[in-house]
Amino acid sequence: MSTTGTRPPTARGRRSRDAIVDAAADLMHSRGIAATGLGDVLRASGTGKSQLYHYFEGKSDLVLAVIDRQLERVLAAQPGLAGGGDVRAWAAALYELHRDGGGPFACPLGVFSGQVDAEPRWREHQAAAFARWQDRIAALLVAGQRDGTVDAGRDAAEMAVGVLAAVQGGLMLARLHRDLHVLALALDAAVDHVRPRPA
Amino acid sequence: MSTTGTRPPTARGRRSRDAIVDAAADLMHSRGIAATGLGDVLRASGTGKSQLYHYFEGKSDLVLAVIDRQLERVLAAQPGLAGGGDVRAWAAALYELHRDGGGPFACPLGVFSGQVDAEPRWREHQAAAFARWQDRIAALLVAGQRDGTVDAGRDAAEMAVGVLAAVQGGLMLARLHRDLHVLALALDAAVDHVRPRPA
Repeated sequence: MSTTGTRPPTARGRRSRDAIVDAAADLMHSRGIAATGLGDVLRASGTGKSQLYHYFEGKSDLVLAVIDRQLERVLAAQPGLAGGGDVRAWAAALYELHRDGGGPFACPLGVFSGQVDAEPRWREHQAAAFARWQDRIAALLVAGQRDGTVDAGRDAAEMAVGVLAAVQGGLMLARLHRDLHVLALALDAAVDHVRPRPA
Repeated sequence: MSTTGTRPPTARGRRSRDAIVDAAADLMHSRGIAATGLGDVLRASGTGKSQLYHYFEGKSDLVLAVIDRQLERVLAAQPGLAGGGDVRAWAAALYELHRDGGGPFACPLGVFSGQVDAEPRWREHQAAAFARWQDRIAALLVAGQRDGTVDAGRDAAEMAVGVLAAVQGGLMLARLHRDLHVLALALDAAVDHVRPRPA
């Protein structure tokens, strides 16, 4: 799904590129983008400098691929966004993901907030990643409008903004307080926000 | 309101300490905590090393005072949290603050999310600052419950978590997209979340 860097034509090339991006994503997630150097990425991925520069022009380019990878991770962890599900089940599964894994964890994408302000193309790429996540939530809400579990009188795309904001703020505060109940309350608010209202 | 560092007994001492904390807060807000050195703070504040070490043990101590200062700024910018107001007026004023100032801006406190994970006492101090903000929102909701504009059937402290999550997520996404409408939608969701519901 990456929109950046050269697409490796061979399976071996794809594995090398994936190893570089995975290592960079893990390091940038835990240490931050600024504190992650290309040397750290090479050591952690076990790849060589020539391979890295074959696939990426440099760190700035690699950050874009990391954002893509983090979005892939976010969407893969939320199968309820793949379509046809319902918003309550999706929110419950998101909560269970954090509870069962020993969270609350920082959002793989949200963790880069602020950090991407350092380069306009990082910020634009991060904004596009969030827009894709938001589109998936909007599609879930449209499905809910069809089956009557989501308010059909409001715009699904606009409601999706409120839902994603609740998820992001909820994850941030839950992580800060090391308290899963904070995440549960934020998700409840998100689900509550979209339900059908009496006129 | 600072809980850290020596309290200067003289007005001149307080001005020196304030200049140090203000400069540190501005630098850490724009560059991040990790990228802000004590040398930068000394240059920006026009104070001397001996003054800084008179008030603070070092950078770690200064970060706590910066978090306090950022909370002061947040609360000063939201007079609607001083009591007696209503939640709709508070949310509208928060939106206007960002619109009229040329925002959306990053939250002075929320901008440190993730960064404070580097030291447990930073994280705990940041969590306590957010708890104080949340308590103010809860008090606003209690006032609303009394006058019938906020759902009296739910716990104000729990609703305040959802409201603060919406504000944080909304500011983060609005700042990322450079789009005030995102903030408006998140604040609408927060206000909507607390309104009285038919049984």
